Amino acid sequence: MKRNQIIYSILSLFVAILCVSWVSGSEKGTNVVFTTSISEDATPAVLARIMQADENPISEIKFEKGTYHFYPDKGLEEYCHISNHCDVMVSTAFPIHDFKNLTIDGQGSTFIFHGIMIPFLIDKSKNITVKNLSVDWHEPFHSEGVIIANDEAKNTFDMQLSEKYPYEIRNGQIYFIKEYYEHNLGQTILYDPARKAITFDTESYTNLTTTKKSEVQRYLDTIDYKYEVDFRGPEYKNLGREDRLLVEELKPGVVRIHNHGKKIPQVGMILSAKGEQGFNRVAPAFRVTHTYGFNANDVTVYHAGGMGLIAENSADLILDHFNVIPPEGRMVSTTADATHFVGCRGKVVLRNCVLTNQLDDAANIHGTYQKIVDVLDDYRIGVRMGHSQQKGFVIGIPNDTLGLVRLSNSFYPYQQLTIKSSEYLNGRYQIITLNEKLPKEIKVGDLIENLSAYPELLVENCIIKGNRARGLLLSTPKKTVIKNNFFSTEMEALLIPVESGHWYESGNGANITITDNVFQDCNHSGLNRGIIRFETDDDNENIAFHNIEITNNQFNQFDNLILEVSNTDHLKFIDNTITNSGTFPMLFPENPAIIVESSKNIVFKNNTYSGKARQILVSDESVPNLKFH
Amino acid sequence: MKRNQIIYSILSLFVAILCVSWVSGSEKGTNVVFTTSISEDATPAVLARIMQADENPISEIKFEKGTYHFYPDKGLEEYCHISNHCDVMVSTAFPIHDFKNLTIDGQGSTFIFHGIMIPFLIDKSKNITVKNLSVDWHEPFHSEGVIIANDEAKNTFDMQLSEKYPYEIRNGQIYFIKEYYEHNLGQTILYDPARKAITFDTESYTNLTTTKKSEVQRYLDTIDYKYEVDFRGPEYKNLGREDRLLVEELKPGVVRIHNHGKKIPQVGMILSAKGEQGFNRVAPAFRVTHTYGFNANDVTVYHAGGMGLIAENSADLILDHFNVIPPEGRMVSTTADATHFVGCRGKVVLRNCVLTNQLDDAANIHGTYQKIVDVLDDYRIGVRMGHSQQKGFVIGIPNDTLGLVRLSNSFYPYQQLTIKSSEYLNGRYQIITLNEKLPKEIKVGDLIENLSAYPELLVENCIIKGNRARGLLLSTPKKTVIKNNFFSTEMEALLIPVESGHWYESGNGANITITDNVFQDCNHSGLNRGIIRFETDDDNENIAFHNIEITNNQFNQFDNLILEVSNTDHLKFIDNTITNSGTFPMLFPENPAIIVESSKNIVFKNNTYSGKARQILVSDESVPNLKFH
Repeated sequence: MKRNQIIYSILSLFVAILCVSWVSGSEKGTNVVFTTSISEDATPAVLARIMQADENPISEIKFEKGTYHFYPDKGLEEYCHISNHCDVMVSTAFPIHDFKNLTIDGQGSTFIFHGIMIPFLIDKSKNITVKNLSVDWHEPFHSEGVIIANDEAKNTFDMQLSEKYPYEIRNGQIYFIKEYYEHNLGQTILYDPARKAITFDTESYTNLTTTKKSEVQRYLDTIDYKYEVDFRGPEYKNLGREDRLLVEELKPGVVRIHNHGKKIPQVGMILSAKGEQGFNRVAPAFRVTHTYGFNANDVTVYHAGGMGLIAENSADLILDHFNVIPPEGRMVSTTADATHFVGCRGKVVLRNCVLTNQLDDAANIHGTYQKIVDVLDDYRIGVRMGHSQQKGFVIGIPNDTLGLVRLSNSFYPYQQLTIKSSEYLNGRYQIITLNEKLPKEIKVGDLIENLSAYPELLVENCIIKGNRARGLLLSTPKKTVIKNNFFSTEMEALLIPVESGHWYESGNGANITITDNVFQDCNHSGLNRGIIRFETDDDNENIAFHNIEITNNQFNQFDNLILEVSNTDHLKFIDNTITNSGTFPMLFPENPAIIVESSKNIVFKNNTYSGKARQILVSDESVPNLKFH
Repeated sequence: MKRNQIIYSILSLFVAILCVSWVSGSEKGTNVVFTTSISEDATPAVLARIMQADENPISEIKFEKGTYHFYPDKGLEEYCHISNHCDVMVSTAFPIHDFKNLTIDGQGSTFIFHGIMIPFLIDKSKNITVKNLSVDWHEPFHSEGVIIANDEAKNTFDMQLSEKYPYEIRNGQIYFIKEYYEHNLGQTILYDPARKAITFDTESYTNLTTTKKSEVQRYLDTIDYKYEVDFRGPEYKNLGREDRLLVEELKPGVVRIHNHGKKIPQVGMILSAKGEQGFNRVAPAFRVTHTYGFNANDVTVYHAGGMGLIAENSADLILDHFNVIPPEGRMVSTTADATHFVGCRGKVVLRNCVLTNQLDDAANIHGTYQKIVDVLDDYRIGVRMGHSQQKGFVIGIPNDTLGLVRLSNSFYPYQQLTIKSSEYLNGRYQIITLNEKLPKEIKVGDLIENLSAYPELLVENCIIKGNRARGLLLSTPKKTVIKNNFFSTEMEALLIPVESGHWYESGNGANITITDNVFQDCNHSGLNRGIIRFETDDDNENIAFHNIEITNNQFNQFDNLILEVSNTDHLKFIDNTITNSGTFPMLFPENPAIIVESSKNIVFKNNTYSGKARQILVSDESVPNLKFH
């Protein structure tokens, strides 16, 4: 007890002394330096100084090179609705709110976080730079075990768990116990340690089939739901489901898993488990909201219980040497996307980034569709957030241009209006007032998207591999350049979607240049999809995408399908080289290399094909005379 | 879809027309009237008007007499740390924040709420009156089933569930499914429908033994917790436990429960289940915080998923004809206390209240102890909230007097200091700055309590019966009068505690007058306790309570023990009548009627005893010659 007191006195002294302050120029704040004296728990000292910034501004925070631990216990708590994450009470030592021209320089330091923290919570700020540091967690939000035996006849497999992954078995279910957290098998995927990448054809093996239909449901039909219910939301997650697997401990550190309903995982593979969908994204490394100008340079994220970076409603986000990679001894880096940008504008740049082994996409750039559920008067609509992980998302700011969209008619807005104001009532429901009168044809069920909140995008000199899911999801109509990158992703390398039924992620990809990239054995998941894929979930022939150039890329794939084009106007595919790598057995040898549907003005020129497809190009009547050249 | 639009247009029109406004006098706001035209979902219209009150003040909100439904979907959402409840995101139609002189008059209306809502969320307001209305929920947050068979040999019992309680069985566990909520068996208790009260000796039967120690725990000892951990907090609730009961459906609406570890419930009794402790208090009917002057008149709370009223940091709370009673067809009213007051000051009055069949105390009046975990400098301490359901509680306002307490030495503060300011960092941890220098003897582990935040209390003409747990918990040193009430409670009628190890509820009862009350068969739970009980959890002989008068009461009890006194100075027990009711078999016939320990200045005078105790009074050496008269 006394010891705490002494440490605190010392800390206070250090904070006083080490916050060496000099003010150079009237606009500049103080330069603050922290030393490793605070490394045991840096939260109180860092937080105390940041919270004084109103009175005593800061222009730079430097850390003496070292390893700093950050605990949540004395951190600042905020309840956050985070896009594509859980709604969660988080703790932070870096509440960078309403800052201007701030640089955080780790000088090569390692920051180790504990529990449900967001290392950098950046909101309503301007021109923020974080550099020269790495982020990791003391205990990851996922767990990894090695498959050491399996038995096809008995439909079991055995997994070895090291002391790094404490666990408990309750009623035949395994729970991985962390310092401040626990998770079950939930979402799982296999890693191949030889390739340090997702196991080939992993879809045949995982997710583990953790649940089945529940035994008994009685009188549930008497429940009368007045409003739309999202049964995919976490509050309904258990409805109608019960545990299917049975886990028994064979000896300390070895468990046997029974009743899996897909192929039995192979010996030698590593099973990564991160717990239940809807509950397992609680601690992204960087969250940037309503911020204009964010730079991350020479930052390495070894882990996060969520994304490496999630940016919402922000502009000009420049990541250079922003790396998401697993630390020594683990397969997985972050448990969700490496980076993700929602409703951002200005420029988004990823340059010289190594984004590997995260459990979701390398980058996803999109807006949101929100559903009109009430037309309240001539100027006001009530809108509903479609996906539970969009709760709390505010679509725009005054004078932004909203598009009114009825996807069954067109992928493009039938009318544009501008925002006067929006009233936040709850996570699912907001009231938006427009500057202009609503059109007569507006009706409940139409969508809105923010046409002002799409960014230009540059992804250049990046390495994207070893991860689950896609490389890049491109849903911005602004100028997009994907240049000189290396992709080896489990699903599509590049997905350009219009989708409104599940994720409500808006944005029609357009003006996209994809050039000088190498695509190496992408889509080894086992799913039958192209490496570059244009897709709409509304089954019609309307144009959704336009002005696409795919030039001078190398596709070195184990399987045939390279390019899936649909609903596209003006696409050029020129000077590309397609080869067969032979890395894995082909899964869909009957596929062509290219499929084109419901499109127009498609050009193939000067490409080289030395793959194994019997037919290189398959197209429908929309492009009747299309030929591969 | 179109229909919604039309309803909304009509609603808007009604709101416009029916918010009949007249401004009478410069200080008065508008009188607002809502009609039953909004009854299908009154939330949007009521909320819209209340949220305009900044610009267009309201002095009264009246409702045409009728039944009004309130849904959460378009309500205002707030994340609340609620004392003695869960931390929860709630929805409300009545965000009464920063109001002054407001009356809400239901004119006899019934308000039916749906899901996780707080009907009245009153904060930072002055002189608020709510009257002439009743509150109920469309679906209760608990469930009730009738025991229709049991089998001692097989250790099973069968329960019938009506269509009002939809359920699902997952892996042998039953879950009760509501519109916006679900719960499991969790906390259970038996009701005797003949008495419409808790079953006699219920402790022998319930809680159902829902959990047992988990099968396997591995490597958990490798987890290194840097700071104090509250393993009773909801985030650790499942650690080390697994389900013990097994539930099977025999036919629709009839389930058999196996493996119960106490006595098998008797046929004819009604089992009430409200789900897991730590997760089942999400929707109190009234929450009043930082408010000076709150009146509830002729209000009936038929149900709440939590307390009838929880007041924190408020003053002058006057409840007259504030009733908590179950509706027709249910045994249970609220799932937690009828009323509860934390850190309140001024007066608390309960007059003419009928508080029956709630699943916890009728009223609990106390402050909080907070633990000093850091002495940061000469003026600042870091304090930790001891109980998970005290998270977020702010102990006081500037210039309040804090007592520094070390309970092992004394139940009274060793030093008083006044608050300069407090800095809220997170639910568990705050930094408090004092106006005066901290004393040298202060040390980590000492407690603080707010001596300025205890109220005078009057409980008069109330009927308290049929509930689980206590009647009144009295932890205020201010003048307390308990007069002319009827008590028939499952545990103690009046508990006067000092307790610091579990609930961290502060306040030494003193200056208490208990007069003209009837105590009828209290403590029929099966616990061996007095009807009026003074108790400290620190096992020492220091004085904790003083100046107590217990006069002219009737104790008509089935069992012997009436009064337990300890650590008390100056207690008079005069003109009381003690009889044996014969209602139930005696459980502890060896008990005396009165036990006195570690006390002084105790007087018994002019009492009448016609009970069955062989020895009326047992006392220890602290009061060597004490006699019952």
